[in-house]
Amino acid sequence: MGDHTSRPQPPYYAVIFSSQRTDSDQGYVRMANKMVELASQQNGFLGVESARDDQLGITISYWNSLEAIKNWKEHAAHQVAQQKGKTEWYKSYTIRVCKVEREQFFNS
Amino acid sequence: MGDHTSRPQPPYYAVIFSSQRTDSDQGYVRMANKMVELASQQNGFLGVESARDDQLGITISYWNSLEAIKNWKEHAAHQVAQQKGKTEWYKSYTIRVCKVEREQFFNS
Repeated sequence: MGDHTSRPQPPYYAVIFSSQRTDSDQGYVRMANKMVELASQQNGFLGVESARDDQLGITISYWNSLEAIKNWKEHAAHQVAQQKGKTEWYKSYTIRVCKVEREQFFNS
Repeated sequence: MGDHTSRPQPPYYAVIFSSQRTDSDQGYVRMANKMVELASQQNGFLGVESARDDQLGITISYWNSLEAIKNWKEHAAHQVAQQKGKTEWYKSYTIRVCKVEREQFFNS
């Protein structure tokens, strides 16, 4: 997904995570990388896309079912990261669970 | 939306635009800003969030209906920008139309 290669047919699901960081970098990059690696090993994971600039970070993970999203949300190591995110790394964030209804791809 | 303040109740719609840029900056920033301004004047527009780093850009626009998304897609000035995007600014992109089913907000 991130590399625009795997292309599951809709419908599937997306979790949009948009966040504003605090000034604390304490362990953030290591944890973020670990979470992406761990998420990608879960059943139903389809891919992830991420971008961050000075204003905002957006990470979108794609899943084949709402159940897969729920399982990942409740994963023990992910729960630890979520807690740390609230107390340390994020000023604010929004999580949106979406159903991807259609997609269009362009490659020059 | 971008500033985490306006919070419409789901369901509403999201258009996820994830892109990889070419090396050409010819008029890009001006056009991108113009499109955000123009989109925000359309009926049904709820907000926009955007982040770009070296690897990927992600822009998500939020809308109150599929009809609003269709109208914006077909807007004349937007059509010009879409064409220019394909020939000049983007190596590749994916557009996903999604229904936002639920959301969760955190503010420290």
